[in-house]
This record gives sequence, C-alpha cells and structure tokens, in this order.
Amino acid sequence: MSHSHPLHRSSHESQASEIYYSAENSVPIMSMPNPYGPNPSDFLSNVGKFEVIESTLREGEQFANAFFSTEKKIEIAKALDDFGVDYIELTSPVASEQSRKDCEAICKLGLKAKILTHIRCHMDDARVAVETGVDGVDVVIGTSQFLRQYSHGKDMNYIAQSAIEVIEFVKSKGIEIRFSSEDSFRSDIVDLLNIYRTVDKIGVNRVGIADTVGCANPRQVYELVKTLKSVVTCDIECHFHNDTGCAIANAYTALEAGAKLIDVSVLGIGERNGITPLGALMARMITADRDYVLSKYKLHKLRDLENLVADAVQVNIPFNNPITGFCAFTHKAGIHAKAILANPSTYEILNPSDFGLTRYIHFANRLTGWNAIKSRVDQLNLNLTDEQCKEVTAKIKLLGDVRQLNIDDVDSIIKDFHAELGTPALKPVLGDRDVSEEPISKKQKST
Amino acid sequence: MSHSHPLHRSSHESQASEIYYSAENSVPIMSMPNPYGPNPSDFLSNVGKFEVIESTLREGEQFANAFFSTEKKIEIAKALDDFGVDYIELTSPVASEQSRKDCEAICKLGLKAKILTHIRCHMDDARVAVETGVDGVDVVIGTSQFLRQYSHGKDMNYIAQSAIEVIEFVKSKGIEIRFSSEDSFRSDIVDLLNIYRTVDKIGVNRVGIADTVGCANPRQVYELVKTLKSVVTCDIECHFHNDTGCAIANAYTALEAGAKLIDVSVLGIGERNGITPLGALMARMITADRDYVLSKYKLHKLRDLENLVADAVQVNIPFNNPITGFCAFTHKAGIHAKAILANPSTYEILNPSDFGLTRYIHFANRLTGWNAIKSRVDQLNLNLTDEQCKEVTAKIKLLGDVRQLNIDDVDSIIKDFHAELGTPALKPVLGDRDVSEEPISKKQKST
Repeated sequence: MSHSHPLHRSSHESQASEIYYSAENSVPIMSMPNPYGPNPSDFLSNVGKFEVIESTLREGEQFANAFFSTEKKIEIAKALDDFGVDYIELTSPVASEQSRKDCEAICKLGLKAKILTHIRCHMDDARVAVETGVDGVDVVIGTSQFLRQYSHGKDMNYIAQSAIEVIEFVKSKGIEIRFSSEDSFRSDIVDLLNIYRTVDKIGVNRVGIADTVGCANPRQVYELVKTLKSVVTCDIECHFHNDTGCAIANAYTALEAGAKLIDVSVLGIGERNGITPLGALMARMITADRDYVLSKYKLHKLRDLENLVADAVQVNIPFNNPITGFCAFTHKAGIHAKAILANPSTYEILNPSDFGLTRYIHFANRLTGWNAIKSRVDQLNLNLTDEQCKEVTAKIKLLGDVRQLNIDDVDSIIKDFHAELGTPALKPVLGDRDVSEEPISKKQKST
Repeated sequence: MSHSHPLHRSSHESQASEIYYSAENSVPIMSMPNPYGPNPSDFLSNVGKFEVIESTLREGEQFANAFFSTEKKIEIAKALDDFGVDYIELTSPVASEQSRKDCEAICKLGLKAKILTHIRCHMDDARVAVETGVDGVDVVIGTSQFLRQYSHGKDMNYIAQSAIEVIEFVKSKGIEIRFSSEDSFRSDIVDLLNIYRTVDKIGVNRVGIADTVGCANPRQVYELVKTLKSVVTCDIECHFHNDTGCAIANAYTALEAGAKLIDVSVLGIGERNGITPLGALMARMITADRDYVLSKYKLHKLRDLENLVADAVQVNIPFNNPITGFCAFTHKAGIHAKAILANPSTYEILNPSDFGLTRYIHFANRLTGWNAIKSRVDQLNLNLTDEQCKEVTAKIKLLGDVRQLNIDDVDSIIKDFHAELGTPALKPVLGDRDVSEEPISKKQKST
C-alpha cells in the first residue's frame, strides 16, 4: 500500500506536520479552458503583454520606515533587474543632493531595465532630471480639485502649459517621457481627457492614471481606462494605492481595459499602506497568462527579493502575503487535504513550484481527515487499512480537541495504534527522523 | 504665527517625528459628489445595504496557526457580536466532539448576531447541526469538475438530490438554510444555474458563490453574480479567497452586482492566505457608504478585535494592513505633507478618527518639505519666516541624506538654527518633552 499513490514519491522528505511533494510531482491543471484567462470580449486587453514599472526606489522610499543607503539602493536595483522588471523608477533628483547622486550611480550600472525618475511637472525639476542619465522621466501633477486647491494652486490651463513645456524639453533630450495626473479619480473627466489628448498629440510615450488616495474600485478603473484608451494613442500606465485593499484587482482590471504598464513596489511599500505589490501582481497575472509571466520574470527569485526589501525597511513579510506568506500553500481542513492529495489543482491554481516553493498539508489538528492521516501512515511506512486509518484519525481528533497538536503527537498515536494491532511494517521503518522536527507553528513563524 | 493654522490646535500633543491632529480637527470631505459611491447604473447594487457573515470561527479555524480553546472562541464571538457583525459562522459540529460542544455553547450566549454552522451537503452532518441550537446552517458542496472528480466523486443529479433532502430537512426545523457551490468559477455555468434555481424554488434563504481557489477577478465576479441574480429570488452570499490578492475587490464588485452578504474573517485568516478581511472590507465599504457603515459597525473596536485574533493565532498585524497597519495614516513625502496640512482629504479619503485612530505626518527624513518643517517649527513655538523655514529644511535634508533621522535630529537642527538667528520665541518654549520621545521607527515597530 505504501508508495502506491502517484503523488507520494518524495514523501519521505516530509518535514514537520506536513506532507510534502516535490515540484516535479505537481499535477498540472487539466486541459480545460482557463476560466481565469483574458476575457475574450476585451479586445484591447494587455493582460498577456503587460509591463512593470518597479517603484520600490521611489514610491517605496516614501514608506514610513524606508531609508535606503546608496549601497542598498544599488543592491535592490540589481535584484529588481535580475528579477526581470521592465522599468526601475527612482526618487526625484531634486528631493535631496544624495538622491541626485544615487540616481546617477544607478544609471551607470548598465542594467537591462530602463531607469526612470519621477518629478513634479516643473522645468526646475526637469532640467536636473535629464542630466542624471535616466532613460526616461515620469512627470506628475495633481489634477483633482483638492490638489489644485490645497497643493499647487494652479488651474488646468497652467497645468497644460507647464506640461507642454516640460514634455517638449524632455523629448528634446531624446529620452522617454510620461505625463500622469494625480488623484485621477477625483479629477473632472473632461479636464482629464483634454490634457491627456494634448500631451498625447505632442508625443509623450505614456500617460498615467493614479489612484493617489487608494479608493478607486475595479469597475470604475475599467471605465476610466477604457475611455482614456479611446482618446490617446500612446501607452497607458496605472498607479494604484492600496488603502481600501483593491490595488491588485484595480491593476488587473486596468490591463483588461487596455492599460499596458503597472506601477508596483516590492511588498507594495509606499506612502501610507502602499501600492500594488510586485509579488501579488505576479500571482494575479500568472493565473491569467502563465506562459507570458514565466517567460519574462524570474519568479523563483521573488522570495529573496521580498526578504531583501523587508530587511531594508525593517518589516516582516505579512503572514497573509500572496505566494510568500508562510501559509500561502498550506492546506488544513480534512476535505481540502483529501482533494489536494488526489489532485493539487482542486484547491490550488497557483503552482508553488513556479515560485520555487512547496505545498504543505497540515494534518496535525482536529479538522484533519482520514485521507491526510492515511497519507502520513504511508509516509511512516506502516500498514493500515482504510478502516483502521479512520479509527486512528478519530483518536487524533480527540487529542486535537484538547490542545494544539504537533507531528510528535500524531506520529505517536499512529505508531501506538499500529503496535497494538501487531501488524508488521511493510519495510523497515524510517526511524525517528520526522519526530525530531519542530512543530509546524514554530517552523512557520521563523520563515 | 504659532497656532495660526486651524489644524494645529492639538499640535502640542505631538509624539515622535510626527505631527498629530486630534480627531475633532479632521476636516471633513468637501460637499462634492462622492466618486467612490455606488454606481448609479447598478440597479441591483447592495453596496449600501450589505451584511457580513463573520467566519473567523469557521474559515479562520482552518488557518494553519489556529487552535481556539472554548474560552477563546467565546471571547472572539462576543467581540464580533459587539463589533456588530450580522452573522457568526462556526466550524461544523461533526469536525470533532469539542467543535460540537463549542457550537452549542456559543448558541447559548444570547448574542445579537445570528449563529450559523457550516456543513457538507449530507444528512449525517445536517442531523447533528440542527440540534446545536444554531439560527441557520450553511451547506456547501463542490460543483467544479475538479472537486466532483477528486473530492466527493458525485454527479450533478446526486448533488441536487442531496441538496433537496438536506434543505427540506433543515427548513423543517424552522432555521435558516444556505446552499453554496464550492469552486464556483470553475463550475459549468449551466449546472450551476440549474442547481441554484432548484434550491431557490424549494425555499433556501441564501445561495452562495465561492471562489475557493482565490483566482477570480472582479469583472468575472460581477458577471456571475449578475447572471445568478436573474435566476434566483433569494439573497446571494459570496466567499472569496485571497490567493491572488483580489478578495476585497471581488467582494465589493459582488455587492455592486446584487450580492447581499460577504463572508469575512478577522485579518482574513483561513485556508492558505485566507479570505476577505473584515477590516479591509470596512475600509472598502466606508468609502462607498459611510453613513451605512457607521450606523451598523463599531469601527473604533476594529483594532482591538484584530489584536485579539492576531494574538490567538500568533501572527503580527501585517505592516500594510488597511486601517490598522502601523503606517496606514502616515504621510511622508514633502508634497503629500504640504497638502495634508492644508486639507487631509487631499491624500486621504478614509478618516482615521472613524476608526478611533489618528493621522501622522512624518517629517524627519530627506523627502520632507518646508511646509512640514514649518508646521514643526510652529509646534516648537519658534518664530521663523517661510524663507527661514526653507533654509532650515535644506539643512535637515542634508543630514537626512547621510542617515535615518529621528525627531531629536530635526528638533536640534531647528533649535540651533533658531538660536543662531537670535530671534526670541513667541512664548515660553515647551522644554525638551518631545526630544525625549523615541524615534518613529522604534515606536512603530512596537505597535
């Protein structure tokens, strides 16, 4: 009976209270159409050809805890480049003298990613930016009534005139230029479309929409992007804050509507609780177009990249982070464990091996089921019938009602039960290797 | 000059490197139409009349780290009830003997919230469930090809027959009944609508849609809910996993399409990286209908509720959590700080005082601007002109380029600058109270 299950080949590598499958044993999703792929009715969709503007070194520097030394900026820029991001956006060179020097230093690294810097829509800033060696300049100005009244105090005519002057200047230097509004969703739609059409006509590479206050919702995003797409011929870039938890969904919906580029940062760090996180966007996009994502981005480097940035800004990886959260691929309830054992695609679209990670089945708890326990019995190389597995599962659930279990508890119950039956093991048992492992809760907290 | 700014009344309560405003000083959003309100074209929208099914004690118990004692379950149930959730969902009473006893104990508490338990679509489970004293039973069965093949092995006819038997039995006991499919977005749409119409006709209270694998996207959700809404007359409940970071946006979009109830858990805890979090949903919904949310839910208890559950399952509040993440209301870049000082609505739709929280402006860093520094000068009760504030800001940015700053650094620079000018303070200075505070990075990590 042991090893009869096709998924159990590497089960002897099990650690702690989990059942482990090596990557090559993952069963691919069956050959049925992917219900999570691009919507065929979205003719302008860029879901399968999106690009990423990575802003950990700009938006991320606005995160409360962020202070990046020059060395750390270079380390992060190289890691982002290695991951495969399309653009790296840097803090404005006029923010401080060191910001300017760092911008120049990163431009000289010779990275594959294009280097951008992000400035106010003002010639003073533009003149400094174009001298840093960047491949492009991202210009932003507040267009909402709020920002026009309380931030810069300018009207739309003034904004348009400044934009034209800055854009033509940057273009004259032969580098890319993006014009973005700020707080776009609280801006007057006619004003917005007007200025976007103006800057499109004078030849910007991209226009940007920004949900600066983090309150837009997906269908609102879809409508605005789709409308803008009918007005401009250049690419559309989107920037979403995450105050109401929609930054990932908004990014996806923007791509469906025809946006091409999404601003992200590692772990989403930025002003307040941040923007669309790079890792979560990868999770989102791989469900829609796995081949495209795998062809461009080194997903197995995601965890290292996140750890690098988390250490730099002194935060922990959130327990519930998509992909790299400690339990993102942990299955617990008996009914889930049973189905995952039969076919991982039942409860998992994301394949952990795409990210260099593994799947776990948590069986040492009162919600466990006999299929998960039977699988553990097989791992221990013991010989129990299905009925006997159900019986020992009942004993495990009894103890699980009293306290939190770890693998020692479960294995002891199984081994005692087996010993009482007097049935010989099929092969020499594995010894106590597994038993020496830490319980799952301790192991997981350390990751 | 000091105290001349209308927002500065309680500035002397400032702590660490932030400028603090008491709740009553928050400027309300101006009287313009809310662009984040319900979409007028959604005739069936329940954005302004949604209900919450709180599943920390069911879905949340499936979180890897969760083991709730009876006492802890009761403490959490009471806190949820006090917060104002509409329903509390509990683990199936057949999961274990203690699960059954705990279910009975919570039913006897006499809470305002209705108590539900969640079972498989099977008479064995239903017979136990109806004896626990619950107000309703949530029935679920896998309807996708994956789950039908690898989980229960039943066809749609069998599913329909079981559903009818269980539903009629539960209804005969005079309690609520919900029928939900599992993995709804990978289920055949005709099968799905067929079974929903069948159970609607025999009188279920609610039908449920579940994105069990956490891969649905908002427009897909909108379409499915809208279609289902045209087929059934009962309420629609939705359950979204968060594997690809869309659980909050999907919940909102489902309500737009006519769903009425959303499954949530505190911090989103559940299988893998969990489901729609209660707190984030509150952030999402308050931007759409503030009056409704404030009339039903005690938002100022959110932080305590999250801390209670985080402690129980041994996790930290994610640094980027909406509302309660340590920096959710912290503003850093100079341009943001300037506008926030003039009107908080410029960069903030969510009002921190709605949640019993406060806003911070982080000024001790190289991205700071002279408006933020001027505000700090006022707090220190010193007398500097705007030009002088710009000059001292340049000095602060210089040091901010060299290392991470704290309030001591900034205050010292300001005080030295002021002393060199020889200008007397407007009033007796405050002494060194602020200077003795910890720097922001340490303070924040401890929350």
